[in-house]
Amino acid sequence: MATLAMQLLGCDVAALNTVHFSNHTGYMQFKGTRATAEQITELYEGLCQSNLTDFDVMLSGYAPSAAAVEAVGTIGMDLQRKAEKNPGSFFWVLDPVMGDQGRLYVNDDVVPAYKKMIHHADLILPNQFEAEVLSGIKITSLSTLAEAITAIHATYSVPHVIITSVDLSRFSQSPSTQTTPPDSLAIIGSTIRSDGSPRLFRIDVPALDCYFSGTGDMFAALTVARLREAVFTSDPQLRTTKSWVSPDDVRATDLPLAQATVKVLASMHSVLEKTMEARDAELRVADTRGDEQLSEEERRKRVHLRKSKAAEVRLVRHVQFLREPTVEFQAQEWRKEDLPPSASQ
Amino acid sequence: MATLAMQLLGCDVAALNTVHFSNHTGYMQFKGTRATAEQITELYEGLCQSNLTDFDVMLSGYAPSAAAVEAVGTIGMDLQRKAEKNPGSFFWVLDPVMGDQGRLYVNDDVVPAYKKMIHHADLILPNQFEAEVLSGIKITSLSTLAEAITAIHATYSVPHVIITSVDLSRFSQSPSTQTTPPDSLAIIGSTIRSDGSPRLFRIDVPALDCYFSGTGDMFAALTVARLREAVFTSDPQLRTTKSWVSPDDVRATDLPLAQATVKVLASMHSVLEKTMEARDAELRVADTRGDEQLSEEERRKRVHLRKSKAAEVRLVRHVQFLREPTVEFQAQEWRKEDLPPSASQ
Repeated sequence: MATLAMQLLGCDVAALNTVHFSNHTGYMQFKGTRATAEQITELYEGLCQSNLTDFDVMLSGYAPSAAAVEAVGTIGMDLQRKAEKNPGSFFWVLDPVMGDQGRLYVNDDVVPAYKKMIHHADLILPNQFEAEVLSGIKITSLSTLAEAITAIHATYSVPHVIITSVDLSRFSQSPSTQTTPPDSLAIIGSTIRSDGSPRLFRIDVPALDCYFSGTGDMFAALTVARLREAVFTSDPQLRTTKSWVSPDDVRATDLPLAQATVKVLASMHSVLEKTMEARDAELRVADTRGDEQLSEEERRKRVHLRKSKAAEVRLVRHVQFLREPTVEFQAQEWRKEDLPPSASQ
Repeated sequence: MATLAMQLLGCDVAALNTVHFSNHTGYMQFKGTRATAEQITELYEGLCQSNLTDFDVMLSGYAPSAAAVEAVGTIGMDLQRKAEKNPGSFFWVLDPVMGDQGRLYVNDDVVPAYKKMIHHADLILPNQFEAEVLSGIKITSLSTLAEAITAIHATYSVPHVIITSVDLSRFSQSPSTQTTPPDSLAIIGSTIRSDGSPRLFRIDVPALDCYFSGTGDMFAALTVARLREAVFTSDPQLRTTKSWVSPDDVRATDLPLAQATVKVLASMHSVLEKTMEARDAELRVADTRGDEQLSEEERRKRVHLRKSKAAEVRLVRHVQFLREPTVEFQAQEWRKEDLPPSASQ
């Protein structure tokens, strides 16, 4: 998913697969192999020995063990070291894949591996749960969300953060949540200011009633391409500034990070909407013969497999939505003083 | 290369990587891993258990051992068995990757593994050397070329063959070779007739003075998409005919195989021409500082690495040439009686 999404937006990609599975894990069963830390390191050594490491951006995602996370981290740091004489010539987008919905799905030792590594990244893309793990702050309200982002900037010196999906409707009712339309998700981002304070923006998008797999990778991959584009069409000085951090006078909604995220979410919304239509059509004509002869458990499994397959993201036939998004979302600036004074924490 | 080329033409691809290398082997050095036969089989079992095997086409290419070739062959045969009640619903394109320029680059035991398997394939894509290995006929003239294709149809009952690149200029001078423009390559294809005879067509394309890696995979991948398209826009009965074999009265140049190959070669020619331009531009500005301090051997290696990288096929930025080829090549019918009577064998 990540490789193709970047390629479709014009990037040449060297993909270092950290797992090689028959299918995504949402099917609840799969076969295949995981790369060891040694295999990851060896592939990178292969690139180095043939002078194939002139990457503009590195996107790191799921790795199957703490040692593998560390091996990926070592690659990111080495690429950074090679680029240090040319600020802005290398940018590391790190998706700290650890868990979701209040639950870790990696080994416990992966968490400290990420915590050691994140201060080297330029942009991190935690979901709400991962942001809680990294910040140590339980996100239950807009103000705790702002605190978590502030803490992530401060603790890890990471200049850009996007919390990829926040379900505001689950927040306890406070005046602030009343501004959230029902059935919508919020994406919250920030680029640090020179005093370490966050520069927060928020984008609300309609939630779709379907579980898709790979959307985190899709978000990350599109962000790689769109952020670079936004930086290169912005103030020419920015592209030679370390970590592409905009000057303090750039407002949150004018940040390349905000502009990029608006486009990314527009592309994703259309692709996922088309996927839902295709899923519904596929399930309507699905061959369910034989289902009734199965045990309850077997029947449930077959239905799950069928639904998972039908919900596979339809990317190759909807390239136009990646290249030229048709919907428009708006980034809103979001200042701490806008938060309700007695935030429900 | 193969995965992306198919995706860019609208195919959803399940890629089962048989090797995972840091770079292509044209660099003369690489690191990484090869899939074992067991790993290949296990991944396919993973697809089977989740009902993910409803493929229209399978493209099989390089596999790193005889056992791996056999594992891939078993997958092809299983998919064929699953589809046997619906003729034309599954099509197997087999690229028998064994060697080039008179030399095997696989173990000797890979050859019999392919020879056992090919009669299950619907289309095979040998290069000139591989066609010699499979037919047992040394190709030194147009008539020996026709004999080799006839032998491949007969020995392996394989309905479609394309010999992906024949350098006619190396043939001994006979009247027939005088019709070949210099610096051109010929691609020769055939779809079998019901009496087992070949239905030969030939397409001449200008040769480009550059070594590109991955063009075999690119040809195979584009052929998958274009052949299926040609079959589906042809006589409606064809798509439900086993192996998509056109009726005997369809002329060689009207074959879906010929129509598909013309488009494939047009796309490839433009992409490779753009690649050459980009290569030349890249080499002109290459940083050669330090070269002169190297030993002769080290210097030669560095130059080779630089040239290999510069010649990497530029696919992602030239998608339009895949989707809408701009040049036009012609397929010529090529009957045995057109061959010179005293063919130089």
